[in-house]
Amino acid sequence: MGGVTDLLSSHSLDVATRYLDLAGVFASALLGGAIARVERLDLFGFLAVGIVSGLGGGLVRDVLLQHGTPVALTDVAYLPTAIAGSLIAFVISISQHAWDRLFTVLDAAVIGFWAVTGAHMTLAAGLGWLPAVLLGTMTAVGGGVARDLMLGRIPAVFGGNAMYATVAMITAAIMVLCSYLDAPALGIILGIVVSLVFRVLAVRRGWSLPNGRDWQPRSRLATVMERGRRVVPRLRP
Amino acid sequence: MGGVTDLLSSHSLDVATRYLDLAGVFASALLGGAIARVERLDLFGFLAVGIVSGLGGGLVRDVLLQHGTPVALTDVAYLPTAIAGSLIAFVISISQHAWDRLFTVLDAAVIGFWAVTGAHMTLAAGLGWLPAVLLGTMTAVGGGVARDLMLGRIPAVFGGNAMYATVAMITAAIMVLCSYLDAPALGIILGIVVSLVFRVLAVRRGWSLPNGRDWQPRSRLATVMERGRRVVPRLRP
Amino acid sequence: MGGVTDLLSSHSLDVATRYLDLAGVFASALLGGAIARVERLDLFGFLAVGIVSGLGGGLVRDVLLQHGTPVALTDVAYLPTAIAGSLIAFVISISQHAWDRLFTVLDAAVIGFWAVTGAHMTLAAGLGWLPAVLLGTMTAVGGGVARDLMLGRIPAVFGGNAMYATVAMITAAIMVLCSYLDAPALGIILGIVVSLVFRVLAVRRGWSLPNGRDWQPRSRLATVMERGRRVVPRLRP
Repeated sequence: MGGVTDLLSSHSLDVATRYLDLAGVFASALLGGAIARVERLDLFGFLAVGIVSGLGGGLVRDVLLQHGTPVALTDVAYLPTAIAGSLIAFVISISQHAWDRLFTVLDAAVIGFWAVTGAHMTLAAGLGWLPAVLLGTMTAVGGGVARDLMLGRIPAVFGGNAMYATVAMITAAIMVLCSYLDAPALGIILGIVVSLVFRVLAVRRGWSLPNGRDWQPRSRLATVMERGRRVVPRLRP
Repeated sequence: MGGVTDLLSSHSLDVATRYLDLAGVFASALLGGAIARVERLDLFGFLAVGIVSGLGGGLVRDVLLQHGTPVALTDVAYLPTAIAGSLIAFVISISQHAWDRLFTVLDAAVIGFWAVTGAHMTLAAGLGWLPAVLLGTMTAVGGGVARDLMLGRIPAVFGGNAMYATVAMITAAIMVLCSYLDAPALGIILGIVVSLVFRVLAVRRGWSLPNGRDWQPRSRLATVMERGRRVVPRLRP
Repeated sequence: MGGVTDLLSSHSLDVATRYLDLAGVFASALLGGAIARVERLDLFGFLAVGIVSGLGGGLVRDVLLQHGTPVALTDVAYLPTAIAGSLIAFVISISQHAWDRLFTVLDAAVIGFWAVTGAHMTLAAGLGWLPAVLLGTMTAVGGGVARDLMLGRIPAVFGGNAMYATVAMITAAIMVLCSYLDAPALGIILGIVVSLVFRVLAVRRGWSLPNGRDWQPRSRLATVMERGRRVVPRLRP
């Protein structure tokens, strides 16, 4: 266990997560740019949507935490990475299909990492476990939510996209647990791994959260009474 | 008057307004969830819309005041209350009709209390009376505005819903006055009572603010010139 | 050069930019109100959209900088100015045509001034040149973006409106340069002048940024291969 602890607290974990973080910003900005293309925005629109997609989650978290200027503005690597993603999306047209193949795995790891980071920073600011799970989730899905709102869409994470936000919530909760056990580095690794496995499974098997209709007691009772129909709530709307 | 002052500054006012505050968060989250159902969101969507509905006004106020982490995150009762409201809305379908009957009065009291709280906190942060009225109003209507924006709707308070925002503005102004008279406890009670009476009357009698069209000098003059038509601006669009 | 430096650092520059700043708030609130009229909002809607239009850019900048309560709330002149603009738009109907004639020049100067101010405050907060350009641009276009988002529109600055945001970005960059050269007053004047000239030219000549489609290598190559078609990217979509 000593060797693992050394590894986990080592410089290499910092470096690895740093690259993962920036890769996540880049990929999110790229996806934001791809959506800007669908909306036929101009170059400024690409930049605005790309930057918000890549950095929006962290910005919202830091604005809510009120613990100093957002990292997205003080860390010199973030903005150039988001701008690079936006510009590449401007020059090259990325299809949703290519996106899905290239980035699903990266995206899955990034959700976990961002949720873990957000939860960790919230605890470090002295807040409780519930705000930590909330802001961890917000860090992971906030960029996508802000992007969708900017373009007049109901955020995709609010319904039927393979438990994207659920993965973020679970990962943030894992980090809270590991922090209470005084093992934040373990939390980072567990978070990323769980997020990867869970999200890839959810995408492959088409898992999704129930929506309100599925869980109405009345409709479930009605379903029970009508023989021949399945009783379990539908998992796919 | 001494007896009233004792009452107003007593522990019982704190306790009463605490319950009113949390009841307001719960009711707003419940309404948010009911709207999430209309939009067919999944469980995460219910939670997101419910939390924003219940806590959005205070979050926006605290982010604008920049006086520390928002109370919605530091007070341990708020988030669970908002989550409870969202989950109950997820399990039980609440019709607009039932909502109107159950919650109009509670909602009316809560608008007043939130407007009063927002105005008070703004003055306590050292700002002037106009920002106090603005942030008081924002505290009261901000959750609903944020909820509507999240769902791609033009906020309901911007037009024709029985002076919802007007009640908030008036209540916030009352609190500003009472604060200048060094009687904040009186402001809380007056604010809640005025809000209750005014809002319930506005709903029953269908009061609403004029919209831009009603107040155009040209159209009013035109109306004056055409005999037989009423001269007063229409109050209901 | 001494005389110019005296002029630039003098009280008269402060006074002139103060009036320009408030004139910009007023004009933006007026335009916000005009758009509230199109959406048939009520009086509260006019106020909300007007205040957000007039003060939104500065609010977003100050919330992101996290350096104290936003100037829009602490400076006693801003809110009344924005409210006055909203109320005048409520009473008088301003056509887009009249707006264009009256305010294009004022608006052009204000973009520059706001971009310059935002960039300057960002540098003063200790951030780098890229955040300074970002927040400078956001100060200039943020009010309009927030206004459009409040009304469920895709922000106008994201596509095809005569390089509005581009002018802001260029002006913010000029201010960053002048700040590094220790000549902030020169930056203010240059920023306003460049913004005025560039923006008025862009409006008159119909300049706009390319959108994503124009810059796709594939389509450009395709265009090159098809003889008789123009090779340069279209500047007007």
